[in-house]
Amino acid sequence: MIQVEGRNPVHETLKTMRPERVLLARGIEDQAKIVEILRLAGERGVQVEYVTKKRLDTISESGRHQGVIALIQPPKASTLKGILARIQEDVTLILIDRLYDPMNLGSILRTAEATGVDAVVIPKKGSVGLTPAVLRASMGGGLHVPIIRDNLFQAAKLLKQEGVKLVAVDPTGATDYYRERLTGSVALVLGGEDRGINDSLLNRCDSVIRIPMRGGITSLNVGAAAAVVLYERMRQLSLA
Amino acid sequence: MIQVEGRNPVHETLKTMRPERVLLARGIEDQAKIVEILRLAGERGVQVEYVTKKRLDTISESGRHQGVIALIQPPKASTLKGILARIQEDVTLILIDRLYDPMNLGSILRTAEATGVDAVVIPKKGSVGLTPAVLRASMGGGLHVPIIRDNLFQAAKLLKQEGVKLVAVDPTGATDYYRERLTGSVALVLGGEDRGINDSLLNRCDSVIRIPMRGGITSLNVGAAAAVVLYERMRQLSLA
Repeated sequence: MIQVEGRNPVHETLKTMRPERVLLARGIEDQAKIVEILRLAGERGVQVEYVTKKRLDTISESGRHQGVIALIQPPKASTLKGILARIQEDVTLILIDRLYDPMNLGSILRTAEATGVDAVVIPKKGSVGLTPAVLRASMGGGLHVPIIRDNLFQAAKLLKQEGVKLVAVDPTGATDYYRERLTGSVALVLGGEDRGINDSLLNRCDSVIRIPMRGGITSLNVGAAAAVVLYERMRQLSLA
Repeated sequence: MIQVEGRNPVHETLKTMRPERVLLARGIEDQAKIVEILRLAGERGVQVEYVTKKRLDTISESGRHQGVIALIQPPKASTLKGILARIQEDVTLILIDRLYDPMNLGSILRTAEATGVDAVVIPKKGSVGLTPAVLRASMGGGLHVPIIRDNLFQAAKLLKQEGVKLVAVDPTGATDYYRERLTGSVALVLGGEDRGINDSLLNRCDSVIRIPMRGGITSLNVGAAAAVVLYERMRQLSLA
């Protein structure tokens, strides 16, 4: 079971899905956010189990449950092939090399869900997975947008075969991101937290775009960079 | 003194400013990033002091020094009035209600520096300040973009008097952010991490824009939201 912990994350989760169960600390049922959680759980027919705060402290994985934890059936493992086969329209994918920080992956999954991304591909080794801290930061996005753990080169190869345009976001890019056509089937390739995109992966990309920067900054936080480019795609789609 | 800790943060810092001193653990001088740090320190005439790893462990505030800490004179406290008086051209400001998470403030300062923001205004109470963790996440941005701690209502009042357009980013907005003119003197008003913008502050704003969202997500991570809107301003300025 995946645990979603904390008031806002559980609230967001209940808006869009049906957890197996919600565990609630006794004695906080009159607090505004909890009232809202109980209302949504009722609407969706989700069982609410009252437990002691101590019990939540014991089972909490994030240490920040705020009196409420939702238990969710983990999403079925997806493969890139499976996703490409299932989607008939244009696909939007993100490939990211190494993410260690749960906040960053969570923020990216939240933005990905908000911008209609079909899947996030991260390497098999060395990256953070779908932990409670990631889920918490994703505000439920992590339960909707599949995370595929795969070799990025192999993923890139498959995407090229399938006609998906590979667009790298990298300081070496010659084109400002808003001058690139980002509609159609696109896979955005981003560097991880501590370094840029591996050269041989960069060479496989169809185009390399840059996010212009002033001052002494050479790169944005990876979650911020993903948001900037994904929203430029949204903007272009809305104007198309 | 402010401590910037870790290899990438110290490296970024040395690119754009002159710390008082760099403390370096003995025996790692041949590692690539450290070689680069030593080169930059030499160029800038910054004193490098070799110490034991144990000594760094003791003085480290983040617990993640990776063998190197830069000591920096803290930036002089700024006031909003002082900044408005100093800047002759258009100003770009961000007002954010409550930020607890150092990663979020750091990410926002990094984006702010990259997009030419003149200052970030946060409330006097309840927000995280310029801690080592914030500095680390800001990649040096925190030392360039002044953080002003002020009452947001008073700040908004002053900005209106000075003719700065107050643009709130809020789900209640009727206009998609990319349809709003964001050039000229602008102050972006953002909600904090756990709730939206206070109603009376929202009412003082000249316009309210929204970031469109699909799926079940109702808000982005605050750092991602700031990046999306600040870069839309950059895009509009570059096309103007």
